Amino acid sequence: MNAIPTPDHLVWTTPSPVSNATITNGHVDVNWMDGKSHRFHPFWLRDNCACSDCLHQGTREQLLDIRQVPLDIVALSVSRDDEGAVKVCFSDGHESRFHPGWLWFHAEQSWALAPLESIYWTQSSLTEPPSFDGPSAMSDDAVMHEALTAFEQHGILRLRRMPTERGTVESFALSLGPVRETQFERVFNVISLADADSNAYTSDALSGHVDLPTWEATPGIQILHCLENSVEGGESVMIDGFAIAAHLKNNEPEIFEILTTVCWSHSSRKLDTGYRWRAPIVEMGPAGEFANIRLAAFSRDPLQVDSALVDASYRALRRFLDLMEDSRFRMVYPFAPGDLVMFDNRRVMHGRNAYDLNSGNRHLQGIYLDRDSARAKRRVIEQQQLRRSISEVQAK
Amino acid sequence: MNAIPTPDHLVWTTPSPVSNATITNGHVDVNWMDGKSHRFHPFWLRDNCACSDCLHQGTREQLLDIRQVPLDIVALSVSRDDEGAVKVCFSDGHESRFHPGWLWFHAEQSWALAPLESIYWTQSSLTEPPSFDGPSAMSDDAVMHEALTAFEQHGILRLRRMPTERGTVESFALSLGPVRETQFERVFNVISLADADSNAYTSDALSGHVDLPTWEATPGIQILHCLENSVEGGESVMIDGFAIAAHLKNNEPEIFEILTTVCWSHSSRKLDTGYRWRAPIVEMGPAGEFANIRLAAFSRDPLQVDSALVDASYRALRRFLDLMEDSRFRMVYPFAPGDLVMFDNRRVMHGRNAYDLNSGNRHLQGIYLDRDSARAKRRVIEQQQLRRSISEVQAK
Repeated sequence: MNAIPTPDHLVWTTPSPVSNATITNGHVDVNWMDGKSHRFHPFWLRDNCACSDCLHQGTREQLLDIRQVPLDIVALSVSRDDEGAVKVCFSDGHESRFHPGWLWFHAEQSWALAPLESIYWTQSSLTEPPSFDGPSAMSDDAVMHEALTAFEQHGILRLRRMPTERGTVESFALSLGPVRETQFERVFNVISLADADSNAYTSDALSGHVDLPTWEATPGIQILHCLENSVEGGESVMIDGFAIAAHLKNNEPEIFEILTTVCWSHSSRKLDTGYRWRAPIVEMGPAGEFANIRLAAFSRDPLQVDSALVDASYRALRRFLDLMEDSRFRMVYPFAPGDLVMFDNRRVMHGRNAYDLNSGNRHLQGIYLDRDSARAKRRVIEQQQLRRSISEVQAK
Repeated sequence: MNAIPTPDHLVWTTPSPVSNATITNGHVDVNWMDGKSHRFHPFWLRDNCACSDCLHQGTREQLLDIRQVPLDIVALSVSRDDEGAVKVCFSDGHESRFHPGWLWFHAEQSWALAPLESIYWTQSSLTEPPSFDGPSAMSDDAVMHEALTAFEQHGILRLRRMPTERGTVESFALSLGPVRETQFERVFNVISLADADSNAYTSDALSGHVDLPTWEATPGIQILHCLENSVEGGESVMIDGFAIAAHLKNNEPEIFEILTTVCWSHSSRKLDTGYRWRAPIVEMGPAGEFANIRLAAFSRDPLQVDSALVDASYRALRRFLDLMEDSRFRMVYPFAPGDLVMFDNRRVMHGRNAYDLNSGNRHLQGIYLDRDSARAKRRVIEQQQLRRSISEVQAK
């Protein structure tokens, strides 16, 4: 589809045509018609050559061993060819052609095709999960794309009017990506049990928590699908852990500092399961972004920290718990049969109000995925839409 | 089994009996017969009360809402009861009993039941994977425990003389924990294919890499099981990424700094898969430990970093790649039919030498798990052994 190769399978548009390109100290300067200009490093360009010597044309995997490229390589000349490619001759004798749109996106964005930015929410900014018609999302990629976008931004999504058949949650999950199995059942049933081995399987209230903080590899996504709900009470409670973290970062930096550095261990309480992991309640990513929230009061282990930090650690934990109970941070809504709620289990803490066992039946089915699959599905839809729209333009 | 309750299901031994216990400024000082002494924080003790008001006796989940405990709580008195428990009366009127062994381990260790410490290895310290007899490991928990201990320390393990039936890799994996499914098959076959969509499925050499660095949730464990191998060449190459990281940390700190801070993106190259993640090549954990190695030359995306860092980023990448090719860091060994090799896919990079397609057949089956399951299985065996040995002592 691209006449000019790129080191991937992707379609790249060109937001602005190239005005001209020049060499400065061995680097390539590209000036665009819209007035922007970008400088490209010669080693970087050489590394990304997409010719058949440097890149396997089928698998799009690199063949070039970059250890063989001189670190002091320079661009000797730059020109544009008839197809619009930016053509560069290097001091190692190699010649490469670059797609202008591919160049533009890699220079202009900090991370091409990055995850969407989180939008933190509170009770006042988001009173219920972003909601879409389930059957439409399943049949129309444009609706699914909108739904997955909302999910990635808010960490929560509700599809309504889904079938109320058992197993629906698994077929939906598989439309996104592989299921994440855990020590629970692949598809687990949330109902009230007489011999519950966890409060989850009673009719008691459940305070906000993430599932499986006991794993280093805590599943990134949880989906709960309501088959039946005729009980009084049992409303879902959702809390944006990133919103609480942002609030504390801005307003109570000493508390925030403790939450991002003091490690708490969580362990599975079931006899003869040995899952156990330790990490800060708020884990930060390499770019200073919020990466994970890890807290479940009922599987929290004894604090093990330098004695000088015990007071501050409990103070920070209690402050976080207080904000979780603060109505400003709590989204509370009922589950209707056919509702499927998908949430980021490493960001959004979930809980429920108690319900009256004698007032009716309540049956949810749940499953886990990883965040990667929801992002991947969104990107695939975007690429397919882009390919379609380019084909349509070309067909005219 | 413990007459004295602990806030878990676990068995705790008592390395040394309590000599005496006293109160200092509201904290509890426990002096042990072996001369050690530990001070316990009153809020910490109160938080870990295992009585039936504070802890659900069946699920071992906390019932106490620690937000209701005064932050300035103190211990008023401490004594020992007839069963050997350390009994504490608190200023909120509550009385708790603590198991001395549980107290000892939580005071003495930085993290009770922590993961085992990594032992970094090079070609000279470990010439082949720590190896055990497969059928023995499957039938004898003591052998399995030894094998899992070696795995956790070295990030690699080989079981020999396993059955050469298809699916063996899955039944072995399930003996540890849930399978981690990905965009590949649940059990994938590594054979040479005519229409390979990845170099993995050719007979070409594969440089060292981790699988699925394209996922935020990269699987922590990979298992490869050899069903058939009669080709010339095709030796496995294993590289301890943590050993390289440690070498650079000690000897080339500027390189190490770049490797732990500059993010590289990796993306799946297959058409219509959208997996893509960005992180440093060496990811550090919250306690400054090595957490993950993330590098696969063939799915590495264009570097996107501040232009001032381009030179240094490539220099660091090349240095890491150079050490991966340095024989000092490479373990090279042949795959025999029946060999099952399990390795930490977020630490140990794997590759292979090229092989001669016409010289015979080579067929591996592979599967992914998470690190959590191997650690959990080791801990469960330890608890079972401990329970057994205590029963035996009591039976005498």
